[in-house]
Amino acid sequence: MMPQWIIEKKRDGASLTPEEIGFLVRGYASGSVADYQMAAFMMAVAIRGMTFEETCSLTRCMLESGVILDTSPVHQPKIDKHSTGGIGDKISLILAPLAAACGVAVPMIAGRGLGITGGTLDKLESIPGYRTRLDEDEFVGIVKQCGCAIAGASEKIAPADRKIYALRDVTGTVPSIPLIAASILSKKLAAGLEGIVFDVKWGRGAFMKTRADAKKLAKMLVEVGRLSKLRSTALITDMNQPLGAAVGNALEVMEATATLQGRGPADVIELTLALGVQMLLLGGVEADADAARRRMLGKISSGEALARLKMMVRLQGGNPDVLDRPDNLAKAGIKFPVAAETAGYVQEVDAGLIGRAVVALGAGRARLEDKIDHAVGMAGIKKIGDAVERGEPLAWIYANSEERLAVAKPLASAAFRIGAKRVQPPRLIVEEV
Amino acid sequence: MMPQWIIEKKRDGASLTPEEIGFLVRGYASGSVADYQMAAFMMAVAIRGMTFEETCSLTRCMLESGVILDTSPVHQPKIDKHSTGGIGDKISLILAPLAAACGVAVPMIAGRGLGITGGTLDKLESIPGYRTRLDEDEFVGIVKQCGCAIAGASEKIAPADRKIYALRDVTGTVPSIPLIAASILSKKLAAGLEGIVFDVKWGRGAFMKTRADAKKLAKMLVEVGRLSKLRSTALITDMNQPLGAAVGNALEVMEATATLQGRGPADVIELTLALGVQMLLLGGVEADADAARRRMLGKISSGEALARLKMMVRLQGGNPDVLDRPDNLAKAGIKFPVAAETAGYVQEVDAGLIGRAVVALGAGRARLEDKIDHAVGMAGIKKIGDAVERGEPLAWIYANSEERLAVAKPLASAAFRIGAKRVQPPRLIVEEV
Repeated sequence: MMPQWIIEKKRDGASLTPEEIGFLVRGYASGSVADYQMAAFMMAVAIRGMTFEETCSLTRCMLESGVILDTSPVHQPKIDKHSTGGIGDKISLILAPLAAACGVAVPMIAGRGLGITGGTLDKLESIPGYRTRLDEDEFVGIVKQCGCAIAGASEKIAPADRKIYALRDVTGTVPSIPLIAASILSKKLAAGLEGIVFDVKWGRGAFMKTRADAKKLAKMLVEVGRLSKLRSTALITDMNQPLGAAVGNALEVMEATATLQGRGPADVIELTLALGVQMLLLGGVEADADAARRRMLGKISSGEALARLKMMVRLQGGNPDVLDRPDNLAKAGIKFPVAAETAGYVQEVDAGLIGRAVVALGAGRARLEDKIDHAVGMAGIKKIGDAVERGEPLAWIYANSEERLAVAKPLASAAFRIGAKRVQPPRLIVEEV
Repeated sequence: MMPQWIIEKKRDGASLTPEEIGFLVRGYASGSVADYQMAAFMMAVAIRGMTFEETCSLTRCMLESGVILDTSPVHQPKIDKHSTGGIGDKISLILAPLAAACGVAVPMIAGRGLGITGGTLDKLESIPGYRTRLDEDEFVGIVKQCGCAIAGASEKIAPADRKIYALRDVTGTVPSIPLIAASILSKKLAAGLEGIVFDVKWGRGAFMKTRADAKKLAKMLVEVGRLSKLRSTALITDMNQPLGAAVGNALEVMEATATLQGRGPADVIELTLALGVQMLLLGGVEADADAARRRMLGKISSGEALARLKMMVRLQGGNPDVLDRPDNLAKAGIKFPVAAETAGYVQEVDAGLIGRAVVALGAGRARLEDKIDHAVGMAGIKKIGDAVERGEPLAWIYANSEERLAVAKPLASAAFRIGAKRVQPPRLIVEEV
């Protein structure tokens, strides 16, 4: 076999065998396939696509390039949630401890933010002391002890995926549904899961700009997950306006904590419960959605879910007390209102522009090596359908420099469109796959 | 500008501006664009294609990565012929001196054989002492003195093309019409030409397997040539059976010499004259095809064309005397007949299989660094339509080892199909573009 024969086959739109995919991916991991060959192959895949079976082979090769966590010491069903990323998406921080309190184990390997999309690890690192790097035994030990852990993928997890992702980033082959799916699933399968619910977002603040593309990705994730013996479902959710009222690392930790205290924004609660229902059903903890929902609401009102979050934070080296006294989290020096220019109803809140404003403030990164500022962001963000008075704040900007504020202001302002027409809030959860 | 933005644009099927193409190609030549980025781009082009204008920009960038020969000392019109390659294609050896004898100058930068396709430089190197590496001044000096020169591209000619070609070879991006056209044209334009005729071959022994693909390539070459201010025409010719009766380096030099002595095979003469007509018309040496044809036939019968070939050989360091006494060329130790198993008419001669047999004998190379044996090959090859008796040789194999002969024999044998039906020889020149 020669790498170029396989590349040519995909170039011409044919399907590849597991052996052919294995030859390329293992060869790339070991160095016998050159990066220019893998780049040409990735481009052929980005244009020609891959079947569910091919994507499953690719996933398996990337998975097997590294270790698979031994989660056998954990006796609960191991169920995870994965979001494709959005603006203000702090659901993992709420849902992992909530699901753990309900009796499933959540060994969550999470990522960092890149571009306008925030990352769960960055948010958690707002908590002083919180360690997102755990070795495999420590990670499994924490899941066993408190039912959940949230950490980054170590170098031992799917190294072929890491190498391929770095290459895709510089060769214009990031937005390919099979490549995205294989990258997500290889890391998720490495965590020794039994089931997973995917939150596939579409819209201005999401990676998938259309609902049709989100559906394609959702189908790919669910089908390839199932081919890989992973019980899988997906929700397709709206990411045209930000999720919740806060965007930014420490600000989102506060909103997540408030949600576990029963004071969360309606959309955050709605999505948390909808995803949580899927997790409890996948884990066999409850047999129907209503019972699952009631169980979760009970764990919030009893304080057990919040206790799990604090326990996880403590076990991962963080100071859980800051969650009760948010003033102990990093605070921005400047708080500036985005004032409504007219009275009316909020017609649109462009999550993409909010995301860009928040990155401009320093809460996100353009490159993976950039430092981020945990304190900055936006909060009190109005939602579509809200009535506003002229001069009323549509949101508050939290900044740490006048220069950055000056860049963020017009972006934040442009994100809002106010009109006289009364509008209904858009449906958040649009479809189940 | 970032390389990946341009790559993404082509990935999505859009057309690129000259600036975008220039950014990538100049960046690649200088090292600021990595080979994995160029590989991804080449794959996107191989699948999405390029317009005439884009291909023209690509050609220009590759051309401008190197030197352009100063052919101003040569006063005749500078007209070339380029073939996309086939089995037994020795036309350049005949046509360059013939056209020179007719009053056009032919500064021909030629290539080596790769795979089953022979190369003009390899054939000429059968002649003891012939140098295919000339520096720019020497090359132009020889063209001025005898009207033609045939040599390889120096490192100074279109270095970006060489770098890109080496990358395409290992990334499955060789068969792309715009990339092939840009590669050919960048080197041809570097020779300071005014006009060119392309011989675009299709069939079993050609790079283009279908007539439709050959036509696409011909149109691309002619249109991009014209956009580049090069007077261009193309003939589409049949390469399902070999051209002439001889395949192999020294054997083809003999056949080329015989043709200039008025003893050439009918198809070799037909194609030489048809391409020569185009060259003389492009050069303005004759105004109509009949006059051009008569002039060429006169230069053959007068011996002037052969004298030009000998002069070119001498000026390039070779011994022209071997052309009169072919025994002085390298001779194979074994001469073996491919016998007809039945009587009848030749229905098919598969040029692809003849090409593979001849490569197996050592006349061609699988990799550019392989050594070749100039003596071996096949001669006396019957043509479609020829009547044969049972046991009559369909061709003679010239070999230098029994092992190689054993591999070549079944391939050579399988190339011929004999049947009872009388058949017409197929049309050689199928279309003019």
